Amino acid sequence: MDITSRDNRKISEYIRLRDKASERESEGLFTLEGARLVMDALKEHAALTDAFYTDQAAKKYPEVINHLKENLKDHAYKITPGISKKLCDTVNPQGVYAVAKRLDKFQESCKIVDGGKYLILNGLQDPGNVGTILRCADAVGIDGVYVCGGCDIYSPKTVRSTMGSLFRLKIEKADYFPLIENLRSKGVAVYASVVSKDADILGDFDFPATSAVVIGNEGNGLNNDEINACARRLTIKMKGTIESLNAASAASVILWELTREGRK
Amino acid sequence: MDITSRDNRKISEYIRLRDKASERESEGLFTLEGARLVMDALKEHAALTDAFYTDQAAKKYPEVINHLKENLKDHAYKITPGISKKLCDTVNPQGVYAVAKRLDKFQESCKIVDGGKYLILNGLQDPGNVGTILRCADAVGIDGVYVCGGCDIYSPKTVRSTMGSLFRLKIEKADYFPLIENLRSKGVAVYASVVSKDADILGDFDFPATSAVVIGNEGNGLNNDEINACARRLTIKMKGTIESLNAASAASVILWELTREGRK
Repeated sequence: MDITSRDNRKISEYIRLRDKASERESEGLFTLEGARLVMDALKEHAALTDAFYTDQAAKKYPEVINHLKENLKDHAYKITPGISKKLCDTVNPQGVYAVAKRLDKFQESCKIVDGGKYLILNGLQDPGNVGTILRCADAVGIDGVYVCGGCDIYSPKTVRSTMGSLFRLKIEKADYFPLIENLRSKGVAVYASVVSKDADILGDFDFPATSAVVIGNEGNGLNNDEINACARRLTIKMKGTIESLNAASAASVILWELTREGRK
Repeated sequence: MDITSRDNRKISEYIRLRDKASERESEGLFTLEGARLVMDALKEHAALTDAFYTDQAAKKYPEVINHLKENLKDHAYKITPGISKKLCDTVNPQGVYAVAKRLDKFQESCKIVDGGKYLILNGLQDPGNVGTILRCADAVGIDGVYVCGGCDIYSPKTVRSTMGSLFRLKIEKADYFPLIENLRSKGVAVYASVVSKDADILGDFDFPATSAVVIGNEGNGLNNDEINACARRLTIKMKGTIESLNAASAASVILWELTREGRK
């Protein structure tokens, strides 16, 4: 079906979902932009509800558009270049868009397994940081990611910077304190990442088989209550006067060490 | 001295340096914004040529402003809030600005030392990525960073995201091929970072005592000639279908492994 009016209900809905976290929350949907990202979503069997593509995109990315048509039938809409310009959130739009169900609505929760390695993000605010960290968690084979507060992981910028990892990871939203208590009661060794001389030094110890690490907010880290809720604390030993690494840098190094044994 | 006119020569010069890489290149100067960054520059004895501060900043950051006045004498200018608004490049400006000499104009070159660990950035385009990588290189104690092409490391965004590391690191601009040849002739083991099944797997081998690693462009990595110029290749082993990590994530993990022995 073709959509030629900018005032079409489907178009307004896409824009609301793209721009408003509250809308994504209440509808359980989020938006995707770009041929690669939409293809990743299809490959990972994400549940897409609507898709939009320009004539030009159909010529340039025939495989993606054909997949969309097969999967979505009459929910794959051809749009005009003018409408594409209205939907796009990137500098060089490719003319391919989709609406997807939020993963927590169709994916089973992160199950705690023996030997599992888990990541907990507590209050991270920067969408680019969060996307980079999720991409890294996927790359090293993390068994589950818990997101406690912070920026919306379904915002266009985060979704884009995960480069498709969002569809492969097991991700669950959670409340921090009940989560930590639950993980600890199930025998998971939970580490708070801190900047401290007294904490266990990353790289100098072996993580217990079933472990989780908490990464705190970019500017403030974890507060005392949040740290004390965890059984253990780890720190990255740094040279000289540096106060901390960028959150994505620190998380990458921690994820790398956390999964070291599993990679051997 | 007070500056009350927006057309003051010093103000126009600051703005040109802030906005134009060519101006920074020809003048050998770059700009700094923010109390913390300017304080870091003072602490690390960066050569500042001019500084600007508002009345409000003088009240809020007396230590920084007093340092500036002592160091710069009549080159520390008090400016109006209106001029501050013209100078600022951030959302919440603090009213503290400085012009600094480019480090390559006053800092000695990266000297190759026995047991040294070096980082080579080849053609990285994203200022945020480069800033994050430099901050990480500083944190792990890298002995020198060579920057071959790519974005200007003295752009406001890169300078800001290094969080002061720019003043602590030994950084040198270089041409890629002559640099690699020179490093190899001096006995440095130079590794190209690649995505390949045949390369040495990071974490599975020990770096030779004197080593360097090349990180390539975010989208394209290193080309064949650039890879072949290096004696060795390393790769980060990843799970499943991921093609690559974000450049800053990959660099963080590589820097972490490169300096592992030195941290023990």
